[in-house]
Amino acid sequence: MSSVKEIKEAKKAVAFNRESLESVLKRRFFYAPAFELYGGVSGLYDYGPPGCAFQANVVDTWRKHFILEEDMLEVDCTMLTPYEVLKTSGHVDKFSDWMCKDPKTGEIFRADHLVEEVLESRLKGDQEARGLLKNANSEAEANAEKKKRKKKVKEIKVVKLDEKVAKEYEEVLAKIDGYSGQELGELMVKYDIRNPATNGELEAPRAFNLMFETAIGPSGQLKGYLRPETAQGQFLNFNKLLEFNNGKTPFASASIGKSFRNEISPRSGLLRVREFLMAEIEHFVDPENKAHPRFDEIKNISLKFLPREVQQSGSTVPIETTIGKAVASGMIDNQTLGYFIARIYLFLIKIGVDEDRLRFRQHMANEMAHYAADCWDAELQTSYGWIECVGCADRSAYDLSVHSKKTGEKLVVRQKLETPIEVTKWEIEVNKKLFGPKFRKDAPKVEAYLTNLDQQELASKAKELKETGKITFKVAGIDGEIELDDKFLTLERKTRTEHVREFTPNVIEPSFGIGRIIYSVLEHSFWCRPEDSARAVMSFTPAVAPTKVLLVPLSNNKELQPIVSKMSKSLRKQQIPFKVDDSGVSIGKRYARNDELGTPFGITIDFDSVKDESVTLRERDSTRQVRGSLDDIIKAVKEITYDGIPWDEATKNLTPFVSQSTD
Amino acid sequence: MSSVKEIKEAKKAVAFNRESLESVLKRRFFYAPAFELYGGVSGLYDYGPPGCAFQANVVDTWRKHFILEEDMLEVDCTMLTPYEVLKTSGHVDKFSDWMCKDPKTGEIFRADHLVEEVLESRLKGDQEARGLLKNANSEAEANAEKKKRKKKVKEIKVVKLDEKVAKEYEEVLAKIDGYSGQELGELMVKYDIRNPATNGELEAPRAFNLMFETAIGPSGQLKGYLRPETAQGQFLNFNKLLEFNNGKTPFASASIGKSFRNEISPRSGLLRVREFLMAEIEHFVDPENKAHPRFDEIKNISLKFLPREVQQSGSTVPIETTIGKAVASGMIDNQTLGYFIARIYLFLIKIGVDEDRLRFRQHMANEMAHYAADCWDAELQTSYGWIECVGCADRSAYDLSVHSKKTGEKLVVRQKLETPIEVTKWEIEVNKKLFGPKFRKDAPKVEAYLTNLDQQELASKAKELKETGKITFKVAGIDGEIELDDKFLTLERKTRTEHVREFTPNVIEPSFGIGRIIYSVLEHSFWCRPEDSARAVMSFTPAVAPTKVLLVPLSNNKELQPIVSKMSKSLRKQQIPFKVDDSGVSIGKRYARNDELGTPFGITIDFDSVKDESVTLRERDSTRQVRGSLDDIIKAVKEITYDGIPWDEATKNLTPFVSQSTD
Repeated sequence: MSSVKEIKEAKKAVAFNRESLESVLKRRFFYAPAFELYGGVSGLYDYGPPGCAFQANVVDTWRKHFILEEDMLEVDCTMLTPYEVLKTSGHVDKFSDWMCKDPKTGEIFRADHLVEEVLESRLKGDQEARGLLKNANSEAEANAEKKKRKKKVKEIKVVKLDEKVAKEYEEVLAKIDGYSGQELGELMVKYDIRNPATNGELEAPRAFNLMFETAIGPSGQLKGYLRPETAQGQFLNFNKLLEFNNGKTPFASASIGKSFRNEISPRSGLLRVREFLMAEIEHFVDPENKAHPRFDEIKNISLKFLPREVQQSGSTVPIETTIGKAVASGMIDNQTLGYFIARIYLFLIKIGVDEDRLRFRQHMANEMAHYAADCWDAELQTSYGWIECVGCADRSAYDLSVHSKKTGEKLVVRQKLETPIEVTKWEIEVNKKLFGPKFRKDAPKVEAYLTNLDQQELASKAKELKETGKITFKVAGIDGEIELDDKFLTLERKTRTEHVREFTPNVIEPSFGIGRIIYSVLEHSFWCRPEDSARAVMSFTPAVAPTKVLLVPLSNNKELQPIVSKMSKSLRKQQIPFKVDDSGVSIGKRYARNDELGTPFGITIDFDSVKDESVTLRERDSTRQVRGSLDDIIKAVKEITYDGIPWDEATKNLTPFVSQSTD
Repeated sequence: MSSVKEIKEAKKAVAFNRESLESVLKRRFFYAPAFELYGGVSGLYDYGPPGCAFQANVVDTWRKHFILEEDMLEVDCTMLTPYEVLKTSGHVDKFSDWMCKDPKTGEIFRADHLVEEVLESRLKGDQEARGLLKNANSEAEANAEKKKRKKKVKEIKVVKLDEKVAKEYEEVLAKIDGYSGQELGELMVKYDIRNPATNGELEAPRAFNLMFETAIGPSGQLKGYLRPETAQGQFLNFNKLLEFNNGKTPFASASIGKSFRNEISPRSGLLRVREFLMAEIEHFVDPENKAHPRFDEIKNISLKFLPREVQQSGSTVPIETTIGKAVASGMIDNQTLGYFIARIYLFLIKIGVDEDRLRFRQHMANEMAHYAADCWDAELQTSYGWIECVGCADRSAYDLSVHSKKTGEKLVVRQKLETPIEVTKWEIEVNKKLFGPKFRKDAPKVEAYLTNLDQQELASKAKELKETGKITFKVAGIDGEIELDDKFLTLERKTRTEHVREFTPNVIEPSFGIGRIIYSVLEHSFWCRPEDSARAVMSFTPAVAPTKVLLVPLSNNKELQPIVSKMSKSLRKQQIPFKVDDSGVSIGKRYARNDELGTPFGITIDFDSVKDESVTLRERDSTRQVRGSLDDIIKAVKEITYDGIPWDEATKNLTPFVSQSTD
């Protein structure tokens, strides 16, 4: 087996089975439930050595692909975040899911998931009753299914539904991500959705904030949260970053770190966890010019898109087109967004995502935050369905605006104008002499409030002042309403010549859930050899494989030891991660063990090696082998792994080798 | 200036000044107080681009130096940790500092710090009164001092002390780290220590647990903490790691990640923070054989040690000796501990710690945890004094033992014995038939309790059974006392032939506070050019410098652009972090700006470059320059930065170059 096509076919010969994959992941400690010794905590996982190395390589690739290549400004901000910041960003009020409690058992359900599961199971029961579904309920299969699903609904009841009802269910399921708590409550009443285990009635859905709360400092007075995303830290440092970039836009900041979500009821392994690694970019750009200087480099990349319109039509068949065309047609809002979608694609392919199982789905209008201009998710297909792994949103000027408004600090770009322009706008002037005596220590707060009003607000205040002779307003942190007449301030439209344009930049935010990406790549990389379906292989690309080389001395004979040592020393010096397997078992078995770990290269040291320092290099997927000198073999490994040179080219001067042992 | 000695002297010519350093760190956004826009939260800092890149390089060096070089098993465990785990480890009960509150103002002080500061200031006042201290209290200086110290005691009162009292104060200060809460309370009464600002009386010290608490899941019932160290996750995964290592010891696990301490009153910038990056190693070793196979490689390294005896004698003059001798004499408890001390030293030097400001201090008996066999801190000298930056402790079998005992899971190594041995020991046998009916669902718990008793406990139970005919005990999770007579169990000493030795490994733990190390390296790297003390330089070693190369086109002339592009492309392809500075300012100024950022190399592109593609390479510290072809210059940069080749060797084929511009 050596051609790319043959390998590709071999990979698909044995049908994917999630349990086989999970068995390998567990046995080889890619990851495991955290605190298993203490019974575990759902939604928390630890990465073992191969998972951890894989994660480190993915992060390293990310850093090089984005930060280094695009000259981004990396920051590392704290996870502990005070209440005020997340109140302003909207997370305290809106970052929640709907939960409903069974008052009898105390069990808590996530409302949308429960509605989804119950309706899906009823539809399945209906299909079965109509004989449209293969009756899969042999007991063993049903158990396996239950275990695999880890779902609340343990049993599918074979009951035929009214056709109208079935259609309603399907419509609800299609819109399940968009319901409010009240709507979910109404659906639960309408369709009589109860605790699937006990049939007990449930309380109406209540909002449950997903942030972990804690208290900072010894007094217990300073309430804080663990950040739910890394973005806010980047926004708060905007002025420092802008200064670091000499005042110029566009520029991007980036951050890699853990974030936290107190999921109501985590499921689906690594796909929905309470503590997770994120990598986020905040690209700050002029709202009036979202062209990207490097757009030409990527405009001909063709991708699979699932735009809003296609979804609304009820289809899930993606449109395949180039980024260039997608931006030109307006399907993607702007060049910068398009540029990042292409860069995300290139990154995912680099770390081993299967191109055929990747699509870009546009958010529906009701999915997007109200301030977002456009949003696309890179979705990866897994045995759990299509999973949102990277979001790419245009957040407009929302975040910088709310923080600026709250703190009274300007978060803007000042751009010198080549040609000065005439600008007519509302201006406010306060009579400071009267402010001091009236407001005392609150005077600066009131002043800041007034000077931070935007044009629309100033216009409305001007109207109020004109009509009533006074303005009234409230200021956060000051009790009661404040009333000021025209002795305290003037409000006029003035025309001025401006030499500097001041604007709040918009933010394009590519946001990566590293754990979800890792799990998807694990699924995409996993296959079993057709000749023996118990022999699993992880086809990691060499760049992200946890270990690059396995050194295999043919036997325990001491004669081989010096070559093993020499080879080890050379690999260590060149910082190529490797392992030695000098256990007594057969070469074939040793390779099989390392195929499971995704080690791309094996180097066999035999008795000929002692004579002439030649060794055999084996490629994991094809199992083909070549022979050459110790130095040439390491050179080939290095070129393939770190310089991206294809196997055929890197080994063209080495001799094909046919193994004596079974492999 | 070119000889190593000249450069070394130049670096010391301008006296170190913390304010100059802090001004650079702030201005160039190495790091900054987090949430500054919202007034900041003490003890929380964000790293800006140069700090973040520096940190990433330090971590990368750590990973290569320890994990890759020593074949350690890296794991990434969650920060959220359930109560039970930290209760067992002892953190819930013991991980606290003593705080005392001013009931009038509500202010909270850390008791030991307060006692320390008050006594120090009284001693200073005494010295001044005796004319022994230069009276530094010109108002400006006093203010600068106050600001710099950020201390509670704002003012030094010039009061002469009784000589006996002064001596007592000094004794207290020498032992300040070892006092209990009660002792601190007694000292506060004895020496009338009050709120320095108001002179108000303080409440007696209370223990304040330093862990951040939170609730996991929607019910609010599962109490958790943010981990105070990464170690526990590694211990809990011990069995999985041992299996991953094919059951063999010694082996080491390692972890890099954030930990949290809710400091009562953080001070000293990055040295005492509430959220910090740690890198920890847990090396699991046979308690009966702590020899290290690679000890010979490091035994001749000579270091400065401050052993227990020297400290007890009141001296701080370190002993300089080799690791080999220190272990042979018993000063360091064992080879493995010695090996890691040497490896820590090599790492610190690699990332730019000044050897002259590094010492290894042994913990005093009262500083160590009761289970620790020996403990050494790598201390780095900074303007805040000698700072503990790396701990290297022998934690014995404590952690694995307590978790095993609590969970009933064995955490042991099973070693096949070459020669079987006869072992006589206490054995317990329970009569399972009687357990079921008596304890029902609790039966497994009671059984587990009994079968987990160690030899000492079995001996004592056997005595009890013999003398009273029964044994009584309590089991966690079962109410009341349990009483069993000899119908339920037998307890006998038996002699058996064992073919397998079972043991709980001991743990040697090198634990790195990355933030503290980074701050110390920043101080050790900082100096000002003697010819102009406003020109600051950060002498980072190339391997950890945030940016490696600054590309400087001589002017904005478009002719130079192609060479800049070509050079950029080549650097990017070889993944060498670089920046282009094509601003209009003078070459000298551009270099000065980058000296502050610690960029080790500058490459100047001038009009000769257009003709023959030759460029000039400038070394930051010496400012000397050489000229060569574009490719040769990049090759030299790469060799110095990534292969550790010295400047002289890497540039020996390049032509010395004398700059036309002032630099």
